[in-house]
Amino acid sequence: KKRKFEKSRMAKSRYEYVKQFEDADQIPLNVWFVCRIDGRSFHKFTSTHNFQHPNDRNGLDLMNQAAFRVCQEFPDICVSIGMSDEFSFVFRRETKVHKRRRSKIMSSVVSLFSSTYVYLWPKFFPNTELQYAPSFDGRIVCYPTDSNIRDYLSWRQVDCHINNLYNTAFWTLVDKGKMSNRDAEEELRGTDSAMKNELLFGRFGINYNGEDAMFRKGSIIFRKIDDSSSKKNKKKLVVVHEDIIRNKFWTENPGLIPVPI
Amino acid sequence: KKRKFEKSRMAKSRYEYVKQFEDADQIPLNVWFVCRIDGRSFHKFTSTHNFQHPNDRNGLDLMNQAAFRVCQEFPDICVSIGMSDEFSFVFRRETKVHKRRRSKIMSSVVSLFSSTYVYLWPKFFPNTELQYAPSFDGRIVCYPTDSNIRDYLSWRQVDCHINNLYNTAFWTLVDKGKMSNRDAEEELRGTDSAMKNELLFGRFGINYNGEDAMFRKGSIIFRKIDDSSSKKNKKKLVVVHEDIIRNKFWTENPGLIPVPI
Amino acid sequence: KKRKFEKSRMAKSRYEYVKQFEDADQIPLNVWFVCRIDGRSFHKFTSTHNFQHPNDRNGLDLMNQAAFRVCQEFPDICVSIGMSDEFSFVFRRETKVHKRRRSKIMSSVVSLFSSTYVYLWPKFFPNTELQYAPSFDGRIVCYPTDSNIRDYLSWRQVDCHINNLYNTAFWTLVDKGKMSNRDAEEELRGTDSAMKNELLFGRFGINYNGEDAMFRKGSIIFRKIDDSSSKKNKKKLVVVHEDIIRNKFWTENPGLIPVPI
Amino acid sequence: KKRKFEKSRMAKSRYEYVKQFEDADQIPLNVWFVCRIDGRSFHKFTSTHNFQHPNDRNGLDLMNQAAFRVCQEFPDICVSIGMSDEFSFVFRRETKVHKRRRSKIMSSVVSLFSSTYVYLWPKFFPNTELQYAPSFDGRIVCYPTDSNIRDYLSWRQVDCHINNLYNTAFWTLVDKGKMSNRDAEEELRGTDSAMKNELLFGRFGINYNGEDAMFRKGSIIFRKIDDSSSKKNKKKLVVVHEDIIRNKFWTENPGLIPVPI
Ligand SMILES: Nc1nc2c(ncn2[C@H]2C[C@H](O)[C@@H](COP(=O)(O)OP(=O)(O)OP(=O)(O)O)O2)c(=O)[nH]1
Ligand SMILES: Nc1nc2c(ncn2[C@H]2C[C@H](O)[C@@H](COP(=O)(O)OP(=O)(O)OP(=O)(O)O)O2)c(=O)[nH]1
Ligand SMILES: Nc1nc2c(ncn2[C@H]2C[C@H](O)[C@@H](COP(=O)(O)OP(=O)(O)OP(=O)(O)O)O2)c(=O)[nH]1
Ligand SMILES: Nc1nc2c(ncn2[C@H]2C[C@H](O)[C@@H](COP(=O)(O)OP(=O)(O)OP(=O)(O)O)O2)c(=O)[nH]1
Ligand SMILES: O=P(O)(O)OP(=O)(O)OP(=O)(O)O
Ligand SMILES: O=P(O)(O)OP(=O)(O)OP(=O)(O)O
Ligand SMILES: O=P(O)(O)OP(=O)(O)OP(=O)(O)O
Ligand SMILES: O=P(O)(O)OP(=O)(O)OP(=O)(O)O
Ligand SMILES: [Mg+2]
Ligand SMILES: [Mg+2]
Ligand SMILES: [Mg+2]
Ligand SMILES: [Mg+2]
Ligand SMILES: [Mg+2]
Ligand SMILES: [Mg+2]
Ligand SMILES: [Mg+2]
Ligand SMILES: [Mg+2]
Ligand SMILES: [Mg+2]
Ligand SMILES: [Mg+2]
Ligand SMILES: [Mg+2]
Ligand SMILES: [Mg+2]
Repeated sequence: KKRKFEKSRMAKSRYEYVKQFEDADQIPLNVWFVCRIDGRSFHKFTSTHNFQHPNDRNGLDLMNQAAFRVCQEFPDICVSIGMSDEFSFVFRRETKVHKRRRSKIMSSVVSLFSSTYVYLWPKFFPNTELQYAPSFDGRIVCYPTDSNIRDYLSWRQVDCHINNLYNTAFWTLVDKGKMSNRDAEEELRGTDSAMKNELLFGRFGINYNGEDAMFRKGSIIFRKIDDSSSKKNKKKLVVVHEDIIRNKFWTENPGLIPVPI
Repeated sequence: KKRKFEKSRMAKSRYEYVKQFEDADQIPLNVWFVCRIDGRSFHKFTSTHNFQHPNDRNGLDLMNQAAFRVCQEFPDICVSIGMSDEFSFVFRRETKVHKRRRSKIMSSVVSLFSSTYVYLWPKFFPNTELQYAPSFDGRIVCYPTDSNIRDYLSWRQVDCHINNLYNTAFWTLVDKGKMSNRDAEEELRGTDSAMKNELLFGRFGINYNGEDAMFRKGSIIFRKIDDSSSKKNKKKLVVVHEDIIRNKFWTENPGLIPVPI
Repeated sequence: KKRKFEKSRMAKSRYEYVKQFEDADQIPLNVWFVCRIDGRSFHKFTSTHNFQHPNDRNGLDLMNQAAFRVCQEFPDICVSIGMSDEFSFVFRRETKVHKRRRSKIMSSVVSLFSSTYVYLWPKFFPNTELQYAPSFDGRIVCYPTDSNIRDYLSWRQVDCHINNLYNTAFWTLVDKGKMSNRDAEEELRGTDSAMKNELLFGRFGINYNGEDAMFRKGSIIFRKIDDSSSKKNKKKLVVVHEDIIRNKFWTENPGLIPVPI
Repeated sequence: KKRKFEKSRMAKSRYEYVKQFEDADQIPLNVWFVCRIDGRSFHKFTSTHNFQHPNDRNGLDLMNQAAFRVCQEFPDICVSIGMSDEFSFVFRRETKVHKRRRSKIMSSVVSLFSSTYVYLWPKFFPNTELQYAPSFDGRIVCYPTDSNIRDYLSWRQVDCHINNLYNTAFWTLVDKGKMSNRDAEEELRGTDSAMKNELLFGRFGINYNGEDAMFRKGSIIFRKIDDSSSKKNKKKLVVVHEDIIRNKFWTENPGLIPVPI
């Protein structure tokens, strides 16, 4: 890059001092951290683009593909989980990516996710023209212990479950039960999970656990040991829809987050 | 939004506590701040997409259009300046946007810029297919005084000038002078601005000041008082390529950054 | 210092890495900042040591002397104001003391103030034995503009006035008016400044403005141009009890905080 | 406190807004953190007050007593270690003291330590008048894992050992060996621990391990289960001079920092 070479010599103006106002924003050492992104005003975006209720498979696949791209770009992302209009990327404790500079990491992740989302749109929505460019917010949150970061991931997966069960019940009442939005909402007020399961099964013959795992569990992206490969310990980035709350997943996929002994 | 309504009641799992680990990242009160974004590895991106040297008009127009979109979305952006693969957005001292949360502001800006860049690509490059989704990094820098923020903007405009003069001379030597990159670099080593101007004029008859103002000054976006409007003080977002180092611009466009008396 | 010399060579243990966990805590460039310290539980401390109500002259003199010591130690403290159990030290915008490291500055100020307070105790309370070592909390607050820092100082001086007027009225009612604390409190509830002035004058013949300026205005410490000195512009650290809300003080003592023109 | 009661009603001046410039400085959740204080210019302070070389027992006892006072005041200090002119106070992960506000905690610790040091001076130096008030700097450093905080403590104890061995050898050469400071320094240059031990024993008959444990290991303060107490699990603040690098100390004193299993 020519410019860089000459830069030191040339660009010394009396304004240069303003560069010093940039602050160090290093993420503390030896903590797990999550970069979570979330669609801005996706209520409007999904409705403008006629996403299916409550889950639009193409919409979710597109989210997953954009997240996949982010995971390819950042090898130090250990595991990610996504659902609805959000994705959480967990970086390893030890990562040195961008010298752990918070803004660099955060902006790069949210930018690449956003541009990729638009870039891949036609592949997932070949018949729906994109009306405007969507955007995502981002944040980085630090977690000191293995237990904390596991709890973070569990939090997102439980949230996915709770929201999806509610939304499934709601839209079933509306679509199959011919209820108004208002009545469906009223019907569900105060119900717990068991009651919603019962309602779905009893009134509509729907076994909630038979619903698509992607809807119920969200999407998990991580590097899985590739048994099919001839090279030992060769890893491959995969998208799965498994439970990550219990230890099973973590025991079966060692090297991600240590399981307590 | 149904989900929000039910959220407080439903989503209380024992994992919820992890939300508390998010830190307050409020930008200090009463300071100017800039969000600067810069293309990641645009050396490669511009060469992959055959951008013209040293300035690709379509490429710059696309940058400007994406920045314009950001300025529309954030009325508290007072003034912006862009050049090459970067754009700086200056927020007013008093802005309360997103409660001055640094990550929210920064991620939203860089995300919207990135997705819009890809969204508008076909409009500016109808014959060049986008090979991959580009991304941008972002940062926020605070400036306490009017003088500091003016210096920041001057810094960027001087940088634009210095880089562009160098690049113009370099590529003229290469393209018109039939020099190798290496020889052109050698030829320019140690030259100052006057010498580069002289070289361009003396050997190639090029008057540098006659070059496109967009290339020499960068692109400034701001809300200008719209004299054509019937409403008094009605403002309109415009893109100009003027000098913003001297007081003239600021005196002619009051209400942006106070000019010292 | 021998140790330092050998340190680099000797102390490399495998634990040394923990030093890297110290974070950069630089105060932003070009802002005014205040270090304010405040006695911890001085309600108890002053009552244990039988301070006079509402103002104990020796107690305040001791505070001032400890603050004076801090100002001697830190030449970049531009101006200070103290009252009751607190003191505010304003550092110049440009100071480079301790590389603007927040913790270093804050801890050094509060530590020196605290130790000096105890050190000088016998000088100001020759007949009262110190029962225990008091302590002070400290904080640093940044102010970007000249106007903000002036407002900070005005805030403290107004607070001093308001509290002192209340306390003077209260203790006059109790001491001279023979009221119970409770009744005095009741009497003053809802009164404004004028009413309190009136009460003091009408019922007790006390002209509040005749009270000691130290009690009404607090104590201001700064480097004043020493006219008595033969050297021109020679400055001398002084303690005064003047109004610092209006421009007069700042105009008469140039070089502290610029007065708006 | 009368003032507080009336405050909300009274003190609303137009300057009050400056209070909002105070920033949230909460220590991240669920991390261990250390507040380390260190004497400022104690090279000078110890020489002014004729401290014994290399260790002044009264000086160290005074340090320990001041630290003891801090530990009494902050029950959430789990363990502390001191040596030379410094002390490190480790707060429990879960502490909520002062809402984990960094400045409050840091300033309170360093202030109480400093004032207590002066307060107790005459008790430890009955025949040496204090020439001036010493001060201490302070800092807070966060450590996410049990292993990190153990390493921090080990770092300090190793540092104590290395410095003390060097200083013991140095001053033995000077005092007993009648060497100049310069020659002693030269003699020790490049020597490792074994060589220094050998030098002490071979030339002066001094068994370094026979030196006072306080000098070799520093001083550890913590709440020890009080077997002599009738109440079970009753704890008592104690000062010891034991090895805290190996697991033994932590196993024998459970409830401080978990020992890995
Ligand atoms: N129809 C449909 N809507 C979806 C799907 N995934 C997400 N959404 C919608 C439902 C929610 O209104 C919205 C996500 O909720 P949020 O809490 O993120 O709200 P929203 O993005 O509107 O606002 P925000 O800017 O994040 O505060 O996106 C989907 O697969 N199908
Ligand atoms: N041909 C051509 N190249 C351009 C144009 N605008 C920007 N570029 C290229 C030239 C530089 O190699 C690059 C911008 O320089 P940077 O310092 O931002 O480097 P780059 O983005 O490669 O790396 P970075 O990720 O920012 O560190 O973009 C243009 O209009 N035409
Ligand atoms: N009698 C007497 N009391 C004073 C004098 N100066 C300060 N005080 C007392 C009155 C207040 O109770 C106290 C200062 O108020 P603060 O709001 O700082 O409360 P305090 O220090 O008790 O608690 P804190 O730890 O700061 O939250 O000190 C004085 O000259 N004479
Ligand atoms: N004679 C004697 N000196 C001691 C004793 N304990 C500490 N010191 C002195 C030796 C060192 O010069 C000094 C501690 O070293 P530091 O690295 O903390 O340096 P110092 O405090 O001078 O500078 P600083 O302000 O911390 O950068 O205190 C002692 O027991 N006896
Ligand atoms: O779900 P979150 O964490 O985004 O929570 P929110 O209610 O959207 O709040 P915000 O995005 O403003 O942090
Ligand atoms: O031009 P900048 O500010 O981006 O400077 P840089 O040399 O690219 O550095 P970085 O992007 O790593 O801050
Ligand atoms: O008067 P301050 O600023 O100390 O305010 P406070 O009410 O004492 O609060 P704190 O000391 O907890 O910031
Ligand atoms: O021993 P420390 O950590 O105090 O290290 P230092 O070399 O004194 O440096 P500073 O006190 O300036 O952080
Ligand atoms: Mg949100
Ligand atoms: Mg959203
Ligand atoms: Mg969402
Ligand atoms: Mg860069
Ligand atoms: Mg770039
Ligand atoms: Mg660039
Ligand atoms: Mg307080
Ligand atoms: Mg107080
Ligand atoms: Mg007070
Ligand atoms: Mg130090
Ligand atoms: Mg020291
Ligand atoms: Mg020391």
